[in-house]
Parts: sequence; C-alpha cells; structure tokens
Amino acid sequence: AVPPNRRYSVTLLPGDGIGPEVISVAKDVLSLSASLEGIALQFEEMRVGGAAIDADGVPLPEETLSVAKQSDAVLLGAIGGYKWDTNVRDLKPETGLLKLRAGLGVFANLRPATVLPQLVDSSTLKREVAEGVDIMVVRELTGGIYFGNPRGFGKNDNGEDIGFNTEVYAASEIDRIAHIAFETARKRRGRLCSVDKANVLEASVLWRKRVTNVASEYPDVQLSHMYVDNAAMQLVRDPKQFDTIVTNNIFGDILSDEASMITGSIGMLPSASLGESGPGLFEPIHGSAPDIAGQDKANPLATVLSAAMLLRYGLGEENAAKRIEDAVLETLDKGFRTGDIFSAGKVLVGCRRMGEEVLKSVGSQI
Amino acid sequence: AVPPNRRYSVTLLPGDGIGPEVISVAKDVLSLSASLEGIALQFEEMRVGGAAIDADGVPLPEETLSVAKQSDAVLLGAIGGYKWDTNVRDLKPETGLLKLRAGLGVFANLRPATVLPQLVDSSTLKREVAEGVDIMVVRELTGGIYFGNPRGFGKNDNGEDIGFNTEVYAASEIDRIAHIAFETARKRRGRLCSVDKANVLEASVLWRKRVTNVASEYPDVQLSHMYVDNAAMQLVRDPKQFDTIVTNNIFGDILSDEASMITGSIGMLPSASLGESGPGLFEPIHGSAPDIAGQDKANPLATVLSAAMLLRYGLGEENAAKRIEDAVLETLDKGFRTGDIFSAGKVLVGCRRMGEEVLKSVGSQI
Ligand SMILES: CC(C)[C@H](C(=O)O)[C@@H](O)C(=O)O
Ligand SMILES: CC(C)[C@H](C(=O)O)[C@@H](O)C(=O)O
Repeated sequence: AVPPNRRYSVTLLPGDGIGPEVISVAKDVLSLSASLEGIALQFEEMRVGGAAIDADGVPLPEETLSVAKQSDAVLLGAIGGYKWDTNVRDLKPETGLLKLRAGLGVFANLRPATVLPQLVDSSTLKREVAEGVDIMVVRELTGGIYFGNPRGFGKNDNGEDIGFNTEVYAASEIDRIAHIAFETARKRRGRLCSVDKANVLEASVLWRKRVTNVASEYPDVQLSHMYVDNAAMQLVRDPKQFDTIVTNNIFGDILSDEASMITGSIGMLPSASLGESGPGLFEPIHGSAPDIAGQDKANPLATVLSAAMLLRYGLGEENAAKRIEDAVLETLDKGFRTGDIFSAGKVLVGCRRMGEEVLKSVGSQI
Repeated sequence: AVPPNRRYSVTLLPGDGIGPEVISVAKDVLSLSASLEGIALQFEEMRVGGAAIDADGVPLPEETLSVAKQSDAVLLGAIGGYKWDTNVRDLKPETGLLKLRAGLGVFANLRPATVLPQLVDSSTLKREVAEGVDIMVVRELTGGIYFGNPRGFGKNDNGEDIGFNTEVYAASEIDRIAHIAFETARKRRGRLCSVDKANVLEASVLWRKRVTNVASEYPDVQLSHMYVDNAAMQLVRDPKQFDTIVTNNIFGDILSDEASMITGSIGMLPSASLGESGPGLFEPIHGSAPDIAGQDKANPLATVLSAAMLLRYGLGEENAAKRIEDAVLETLDKGFRTGDIFSAGKVLVGCRRMGEEVLKSVGSQI
C-alpha cells in the first residue's frame, strides 16, 4: 500500500478549447509515472473559464476554487474563446483564471523558454541564434496592473469617458518574487536580469530598489537591470545572453510570450505558478486554440511537461517528474511530431497518438 | 531668393552620447538636399537630456522648449547615459524627452520597421521570415501610464512602501491617435491591427471600443485587434502579417523596439512624432549608445532618415525627403556599412565617412 505521504490529490481544470484534450493526455501520463514511483494520485476534475460560464454562470465557481485550494496541486488546460470575448469583465474566462491565481496566492510564475536540440529548426530565428537558448522568466503573477486599484471606467473633467488601471507594487510583493528569482537563478547559471521601466515609472523605481536590496543576500548570483523595451529587443537580437529574468506581471506576460515564441515551439512550453504555501498551479503557456479544438490536432506536450513541473515543484517528486521529461525527449527522438512542430522526415501525429507514444515511453522505462 | 513659404526654422537637439555625431551628419545632409530643392533652412541648436542637466541643471530648459515650439520642426539625436541613471525622476534625461513630447503635444509617434533588401541578412530572423517586412507602428505618445496621475511613492495600509502609476486614456486621446493610424494604414496596405490587453485592463476595453467606433469612418481599412502578449509573439513568428499597428504608449514602446530589432538594423530606423498642429519631433529610434560615443562608430543613417521624415511630415517637402532616402539607398548599394550593419565583402566606414558618402550621393543627384 502507498504510504500516506506519497498520496496526493490533484485538481484537473480542463477549461476551454483544446484544454480537455491536452488534460486528458497529461492525466494518463501523470498517473502512469506516479504509479511507477509508488505514488498514488487522486484526481478531481472541476470547471473554470468559458466552460464554467456556460454551466455555472461564473468563470470561477466557488466550488472549483475550494476544491483546488484543498488539493495538493492544480493542473490547468487552457481558458478562453471567441464566444466569450465580448463578455463584461466579470464574465470573461480570463477573469476566472485571474481569480484562481489570486485565490491560490500563486505570486511566482516560472516560465521556461528552452530550445530543445530536436526542435531548433522550429524557431524563426537563425539556427546559430536559437541553438542553446535556455531562459527562465520569473513573472510576478498576483500584483501590478492586473489587480491594482483604483480601476474601471469614469469621466474626466471634460465629461469625457475614461478607462483606467493602476500599476502598483508594495515592497513585500517585490521582495518575495525577487527571492524566488534569485533562488531560481542560483540553481541555474547564476545570472538574473531584472526588467523594469525605471526611467519612467515610479512603480519600477521601487521594483529596482528592492530587487537590488535583496541581491545582497545572494552574492553568488550576478544581478543586472534592463529596461523593458530593450529587453524586448535583446530577446530577438541575442536570446542566449539571458539566464533568468524577473519582472512584473504585465511585462512578464509580454516578454515570456516573446521568449517562448523565440523557441519556435510554444506547444512544448510548460509553466508553474507557486505561492508561499498551498497548492501550485501548473499550466501550458499556450492558449485554448479554439480553431483546432476537438480535432485531435493539439500538441499535448506543454501540458505533459506542466505535469512534470507539478510533480517536481508541486509535490517534490523529482523522480516521477524526470520520468515524464525523459519520455517526452525519447518520443521526440523517435521522430513523433504534432503539426505545430512538424518538419520534413518526421512522423506527423495527433494529440491522442502523441500521448500514447509518451505513455509507451514512460512504460518502458526501468 | 527663396520665397518665404520655403523658408523653415529647424531646432537641432543633439542630446547625449552619439547624439551630437549623428545630428552633425544629418544637419549637413538636410542642408544640401534642401538647398537643391530651393528650400532655406535655418538651424538653431539647443540642449536637452543629460547635456542640459549638466549645463543648466534641468533636462529640458525652458528656452529649449520655447525655441522648439517656435520652430517649424525639431530634430533630436538621442538622450541618456549611465551618468544620470540614478538621478531622481525630475533630473533624469528621459524626463526631458517626455516633457519635450508633452510640451510639443506630439501625441502620434510613427515608427517604421522596414527590412531593406540590402540589409536582410542583418536580421537574426531567417531570411524567408525577415524578407519584405514593412511595418508601421503608430504609438500613442503623450498619454497612458507615462503621464497618468496619480503617480509616485507612498505607504499602503500595512505601512509598507509602495510605488504606483496610472494607466489612463480618455476617449478623445484614443480617437485622435486612431484617426492618425487609419489615415496611415490607408496610405499603406490598408490593414490596421490595434493592440491592447482588453481581456484584463479597463483602459484597454475603452481603447478597443473607441478604435472600433472610429473604424466606421474608414471602410477601406481592414481593422483587427490583438492582445499585446500575442502581438509580441506574432512579431517573432511572422512579422510579415503586419501592415500598420496602433497601440498605447507603453505597449508601443515595447513592440516598436521589438519590431525594429526584427529588422536587424535599428541603426537605420527613424521616427516621427506629430501633433494636431505645431512642429513635429523627429528622432532615430536608437538610444544614445554611450559605449561608442565620440568614437566615430555610430550609424548616422537613422538620424539622416529622420531628417527625411522631417522634410516629408514636418515641412511637407516631399522632393527633398525623397532625395535623402534615395541617397541612403544608393550609399548602401555602393556597399558602405557602419559596424552595426557590416557584413563580409562590404566597406566598413565610420559615422563621418558614412555622412560624406550620403552627401556625395545627394550632390550627384539631378
Ligand atoms: C489569459 C490572460 C489573462 C493571461 C495573462 O495575461 O496573464 C495569459 O495571457 C497568460 O499569460 O497566462
Ligand atoms: C527614453 C525613453 C523615455 C523613451 C520611451 O520610453 O518613450 C524611449 O525608450 C523611446 O521609446 O523613445
């Protein structure tokens, strides 16, 4: 029998679009690799995003949040779709995701952008520029302009309509994400680049000051600062210059997506969102891809690799995580490719078949 | 004698770093092409940025602004440098530039990102991805989070330090930049992509709504909307999908720099900032490059091409503008390259020499 400290509950949130397809694959891969490591996982599937709007009238039902909070880790597929794009904010799928992040308190979003040797040609960047790129973007996830108050609509002194949001950071919010970023950089190549717009924004001036302060506790990590516009350029010019990047919520949203596209294989990229305590939230960085939903065309590997991050960062089960990552690499080495990463000479497969191949590979491990 | 309506005053603002070198070249090129077209230009050189902080104690002396305002067009080199990086906001070179933009009321910033056939290999993107890229970013320049109030430092309810800024747009601010963007798209390939984060920010919801309204006046222009994170990706994935992009101040800062780096030749890229009336502000999109300042290594062509934009958009002198642009292309065709755009088999030249070659080419035009 599995000892109690190797039993975990995992909340599955398939969400919208291709979410259900990729979660179904990831669930099977999770189960198998866990059982091979003597771990027992108990899954509970809940609704979020557009699926929840349609069924429950809100993008994050209370029950979903409470089940998620009581579990040991949360695996999300994707949310959103044209259908709900014109909804008011409270009824947007995205609002469900933001409430989930806030509700779980997962302030640190880790987004690796790695170019796998097998996929270097998927990048639109020249081979010599893309080869060997291995960046970790640490994005602040529960603060800044996404959540700042005041926000809303109103009138200005001329009686004109205005729309407004507040970018605000408190010292402790910056300090805690900085600590995560320095810890992350320390375990990688020891270099951290903090990105801000301190030449214009006060919120960034405080950001730079606090990050610089925290740096004194990590003498082994080399800290640099870069303005966000320059960072957007440098990612294109020479992405290999970066090891770990730390930045605020909105800049992290933009730069992590840019970095992921530089790898050329966003269908491969996982993410982990972690808090002080409580369950982490794991999700692929790609969206819900409504155009190909239900057609068995989605690449499930980003979600499968998110499941590996769930095992590693969420449950501390390194061996089971490694099993999944090895199986993904082996499956790529065998030549299997979904449409998004296909190139001549490879074997084109759908979402389900890709999952079966990964399962086969996990199963054949010793 | 030159008729009064062909006499113009131009304010030159060399600024910091490589600013003086590139302005000096651009001034000569401006003078020659103007005189060949029977135009008389009168130059006045003023201080801004770090140079003004050192000499006058402020980054935008009143006299500089008033001379600029009374002139017909303003040509700026670059501002900023390590020396002033830790200054308080009022004494930062950047603050001088922001006050200049606000003081001139130049709310519309046009930033072309064009891959010249001669320079396609300078891009880090694969040839087939970079070839033919021709994007115009229309960035709102005097509103949004750069200028929004309230802003500053304070304490939150826990007594912690906070830094905050306000992203705010009024309907009329959005409408006027939208009109410029639609007019611009109409003169190009007729497609306009408006970039926002309307799935999260109220300021973006208003932005999208107003841009959509304005669209009804331009039935010949095809409008689309894109979230900023997706836009950052799509610029890397397939930059040729874009014709004209319109976006807010901060997103425009980031995306126009990303787009410019995609061309691989930011030393070539000019910009124009225009208001309702009054002089326009013309500047290269590159920075002050303190590392190479004073070494005759800078590429003056971005400033030379900004001078061409000054003639076209600022003074309505299309022929003189065309002279400069033709001369730049001819100089590239002859193989002259500064270090930033150098490739094997070309002739490496410095800033001054590049200027002389452009002058030679302007002079030999019929
Ligand atoms: C869907 C959206 C609210 C979300 C974000 O902006 O955070 C997404 O773009 C992401 O990056 O996870
Ligand atoms: C120097 C800085 C204030 C400026 C900006 O952010 O607008 C620059 O980056 C630019 O894009 O012109």
